[in-house]
Amino acid sequence: MGHNGDTGSETKEMDVRSVSSSRRQSIPYIHKVGVPPKQNLFTEIKSTVKETFFSDDPFKPFKDQPKSRKLILGVQAVFPILEWGRHYNLSKFKGDLIAGLTIASLCIPQDIGYSKLANLAPQYGLYSSFVPPLIYAFMGSSRDIAIGPVAVVSLLLGTLLQSEIDPTTNPVEYRRLAFTATFFAGITQVSLGILRLGFLIDFLSHAAVVGFMAGAAITIALQQLKGFLGIKDFTKKTDIISVMRSVFSSAHHGWNWQTIVIGATFLAFLLVAKYIGKKNKKFFWVPAIAPLISVILATFFVYITHADKKGVQIVKHIKKGINPSSVNEIYFTGDNLLKGIKIGVVAGMIALTEAVAIGRTFAAMKDYQLDGNKEMVALGAMNVVGSMTSCYVATGSFSRSAVNYMAGCQTAVSNIIMSVVVFLTLMFITPLFEFTPNAILASIIISAVIGLIDYDAAILIWKIDKFDFVACMGAFFGVVFASVEWGLLIAVSISFAKILLQVTRPRTAALGRIPRTNVYRNIQQYPEASKVPGLLIVRIDSAIYFSNSNYVRERILRWLTDEEEHLKEEGLPAIQVLIVEMSPVTDIDTSGIHALQELHSSLQKRGIQLVLANPGRVVLDKLHASNFVSLIGQDKIFLTVADAVLTCSPKLVEEV
Amino acid sequence: MGHNGDTGSETKEMDVRSVSSSRRQSIPYIHKVGVPPKQNLFTEIKSTVKETFFSDDPFKPFKDQPKSRKLILGVQAVFPILEWGRHYNLSKFKGDLIAGLTIASLCIPQDIGYSKLANLAPQYGLYSSFVPPLIYAFMGSSRDIAIGPVAVVSLLLGTLLQSEIDPTTNPVEYRRLAFTATFFAGITQVSLGILRLGFLIDFLSHAAVVGFMAGAAITIALQQLKGFLGIKDFTKKTDIISVMRSVFSSAHHGWNWQTIVIGATFLAFLLVAKYIGKKNKKFFWVPAIAPLISVILATFFVYITHADKKGVQIVKHIKKGINPSSVNEIYFTGDNLLKGIKIGVVAGMIALTEAVAIGRTFAAMKDYQLDGNKEMVALGAMNVVGSMTSCYVATGSFSRSAVNYMAGCQTAVSNIIMSVVVFLTLMFITPLFEFTPNAILASIIISAVIGLIDYDAAILIWKIDKFDFVACMGAFFGVVFASVEWGLLIAVSISFAKILLQVTRPRTAALGRIPRTNVYRNIQQYPEASKVPGLLIVRIDSAIYFSNSNYVRERILRWLTDEEEHLKEEGLPAIQVLIVEMSPVTDIDTSGIHALQELHSSLQKRGIQLVLANPGRVVLDKLHASNFVSLIGQDKIFLTVADAVLTCSPKLVEEV
Repeated sequence: MGHNGDTGSETKEMDVRSVSSSRRQSIPYIHKVGVPPKQNLFTEIKSTVKETFFSDDPFKPFKDQPKSRKLILGVQAVFPILEWGRHYNLSKFKGDLIAGLTIASLCIPQDIGYSKLANLAPQYGLYSSFVPPLIYAFMGSSRDIAIGPVAVVSLLLGTLLQSEIDPTTNPVEYRRLAFTATFFAGITQVSLGILRLGFLIDFLSHAAVVGFMAGAAITIALQQLKGFLGIKDFTKKTDIISVMRSVFSSAHHGWNWQTIVIGATFLAFLLVAKYIGKKNKKFFWVPAIAPLISVILATFFVYITHADKKGVQIVKHIKKGINPSSVNEIYFTGDNLLKGIKIGVVAGMIALTEAVAIGRTFAAMKDYQLDGNKEMVALGAMNVVGSMTSCYVATGSFSRSAVNYMAGCQTAVSNIIMSVVVFLTLMFITPLFEFTPNAILASIIISAVIGLIDYDAAILIWKIDKFDFVACMGAFFGVVFASVEWGLLIAVSISFAKILLQVTRPRTAALGRIPRTNVYRNIQQYPEASKVPGLLIVRIDSAIYFSNSNYVRERILRWLTDEEEHLKEEGLPAIQVLIVEMSPVTDIDTSGIHALQELHSSLQKRGIQLVLANPGRVVLDKLHASNFVSLIGQDKIFLTVADAVLTCSPKLVEEV
Repeated sequence: MGHNGDTGSETKEMDVRSVSSSRRQSIPYIHKVGVPPKQNLFTEIKSTVKETFFSDDPFKPFKDQPKSRKLILGVQAVFPILEWGRHYNLSKFKGDLIAGLTIASLCIPQDIGYSKLANLAPQYGLYSSFVPPLIYAFMGSSRDIAIGPVAVVSLLLGTLLQSEIDPTTNPVEYRRLAFTATFFAGITQVSLGILRLGFLIDFLSHAAVVGFMAGAAITIALQQLKGFLGIKDFTKKTDIISVMRSVFSSAHHGWNWQTIVIGATFLAFLLVAKYIGKKNKKFFWVPAIAPLISVILATFFVYITHADKKGVQIVKHIKKGINPSSVNEIYFTGDNLLKGIKIGVVAGMIALTEAVAIGRTFAAMKDYQLDGNKEMVALGAMNVVGSMTSCYVATGSFSRSAVNYMAGCQTAVSNIIMSVVVFLTLMFITPLFEFTPNAILASIIISAVIGLIDYDAAILIWKIDKFDFVACMGAFFGVVFASVEWGLLIAVSISFAKILLQVTRPRTAALGRIPRTNVYRNIQQYPEASKVPGLLIVRIDSAIYFSNSNYVRERILRWLTDEEEHLKEEGLPAIQVLIVEMSPVTDIDTSGIHALQELHSSLQKRGIQLVLANPGRVVLDKLHASNFVSLIGQDKIFLTVADAVLTCSPKLVEEV
């Protein structure tokens, strides 16, 4: 809980030393420890709340403005288009037009494929690329994100929904539940944004996201084997074992060679296009338009060869026309309401994670600020409206946003362009997709999700932090071998376990003096640092809370016991003073104070003096409140370890 | 995850500065930053595991010992009585005898009352004070704890069990479930000990325990109104509203004035005795034997006045004889097995919390070491054996342990004495309790649990940490207004939320130079500290993890923006270098490295140089592994803030 709120605080002089000025020259100056003034309870709570929920200071522009200006700023805060729209010009529009057309050509075939992952009819994917991007363009503040259905959320939604309602036997109820879930996904996102709880999505760690995404990519690719191999009887489960069993048991009679030929050819084409785009950034448009070209070619091919009569499965029918209203389809009562809320919350959170990660990445690349919480309100609003206009959960797509960025998008207008193209497609072109083979959609999805597998990130995670790697692999294998939900659950659990473990077992270190300085550092990091005879200096590398207070106390005593044994063996003088370096101790709670009290009484029994060096503002406050300062004595608290050593071991002064 | 495992590590010289020795005299010596050698993965994991699970180094005495000696030490480790028993002598026995007799006189009436809280017949309380203390005496290592049934665990067990099986209609099944729960409470305790997971109970913070205990005390006292007022129809719920409704609805026809007179008289007597014991520590035995005296007097009074015929409820019958076997009564199959496990785990954990807190308190007072994990094995073993000999969950009692300590107990032999007295009671005296009025038991319990309400602790918690106080009050009101389980759940949730919040929103501080020193400290704690022109020094007060990496990055940028605005207003030179003081940053993960990279690129865009001061061993390791060091340049990492300032702002040198 950050507290940097009290400006103009004064330090009381706590420890007036009667050091004569002549002596001052012989020994280095020792500064007193600052005692912050007691904070008012209200200001304390206020500053905590501010740092927790309003750490980005969102009301700053509103400060000291007249009321009318505040109103304008408020409307602009909700609809950033009113702000940046005023500076919009033709050159920006040129960039946005090209980017918008490019992402439109990429999104149309993807949308049709992704809606299959969500077990919905193909038009719902297109619907979701029409309304949500429009809403986002008005409310969102990212300039680079491309909105629409994405693979992972579609898969997640499909899995969660079909565990409640069977989409083949109950398609209407299934669709209604999908809209319900979308509605509550939106509500979840808006609520997180308005309640300023956006930081909750940070609890899904980067490592877990890398593992989860890779696992989801494998799972999605495996699901495509159905369309790719032309299998009719395919398992409903998503784990690799069920899928492979399903694939091999249908090997002899269920595979369709014509389908495989079409699929494999175009997959090869798409991968080559992807490779070209990767090799030379100038050709980013090659992989971007390759899917649409594949669809056109494959559809034409099937149409003229009548391959659909030979077992090649085709899309058959996409409903013409734009999104019908679905307000009445959302469940607002009954069992399905609860199911919808449950699924919506999960899908909404995952969708947020993806969108916010994209938003942050591109904002950092172009160096503009993105308000995470405002972004969530925009994404949520677009899903709420979407759920009422036959869309399912939309969010920012990794692949399309990257294309958008590379195609030179300037503002969210590129989303409007895309939306317009999807609108035209829905109005006029959908019948042309009738003969599009499913295999080509499978190939497009496979080539799209391959990009979600980030080996380099996994290798880097392995190098940097082994525990993070475990979380990453846990999420990966959880998704691949069990299900998307399990993978998520494993990832979140491991991430939490890590935090708790770190809080429970903080590091401690014995310090020594670095030669020719007055600096005291970990003797394991600096073996040349020398211990001070008769003193033991221990640093605690964490706030002291109930979860670690006993450990900290016992660990300090163990440092002492080990050191004492060592000194005894060597025949050196025993420890007289234990200096605890408190710089990293950012906070302490009641249990922590207890632990210090117990430490003090254990040391007293052994005839060792406890000395504290550099307790921070908050810690000092609490040490005073609990009377611990008067227990050990005010003169036993120092500004630095060096000061403490000088005072406790005056012999050293001459050596310095 | 502490890592102090690699002894004898050598520091590589990372940054060889070509500072001529003549220049060295003009500017202070700048020491290079130590780069720890790459740790072997195995040693790293080993040291993490060691600090997490074996932080107390339990195998130390076994090191370098011959096999036979190891065996002896192993047996002694399981049965500490073999160790301390060898030094046992008559003078110790004298202390233990007096203490044992005192706690026996206190425990017998308490046991009979507590078994009612657990909805069991009175003899089960006595059984639980016979076998478990014996087992503990052989296996436990605390010298002061007094074992037996306790109020809070009895209430908890009673509440949890009766929500599964009704004790009045199904007494046999209820009792069997109680033994099953006791068995699994023991198994839980043993497992936690053997798996060295004892630290898990630290997650119930001191503050939460204070609130929980006080709430439980109120709840237990309220439950006693049944016996105290002689009400026959009493609610099964434990929340204050249900209980008060039950009490007042029976006010006109259900209260029995004779019962009230007996109860109130002896409650007054007990409270006066308690007050005497508190005023003068020498009279500790007065409150200790007052309950037994009350029971004798009240029983005699009822016997001669035939008050039981006038509606005064009496104990009626306590089965004579020692514990029968209950091995066959434990459910090892079926639904009840699962219920038993669930209840056993919760009751076992709470029992542990109480016992370990007591053990630690007294061990600290007498300054001896207590191995928490070994203690758990002892407590668990005693409950497993107890469950097979008709006992329910026993643990260390606050009130009896305090009496034990004050009566001058020396070893666990006082538990054996108590156990023998309970044995004799069961064999010969139980029939005499026939006419003991329930009201007197209610009075004894009320006077016993009053001591669990610790106002002073609550006030201190309020003073030290407001968040802790919320946890404390949450637990208290949860227990009083909802139920024991809810109180526990609230307490644990708030405690966890606190940890997560702390990890999510670490403090940051701007640093300035303390006058006449080279020390840089928080300018809010030390307003006299001066900022260095052209530099901004920010300290991050926490490890940088996924949960806070975005916050940390944004917060640093906010410090920078605020400072730049301020400088602009004042017309001062702009910031050129941002020094991040990393001393409190004890660890960093992949997300943290990403945040630093993004920070670096944001700063580059603004033309500001990023400089790190004093990264710790682990952090430096990871900065190297991720190539972040080469990104910002090796010469941008310094041992201290002072070194960094000297190098980045050489003008300052002359001023020092």
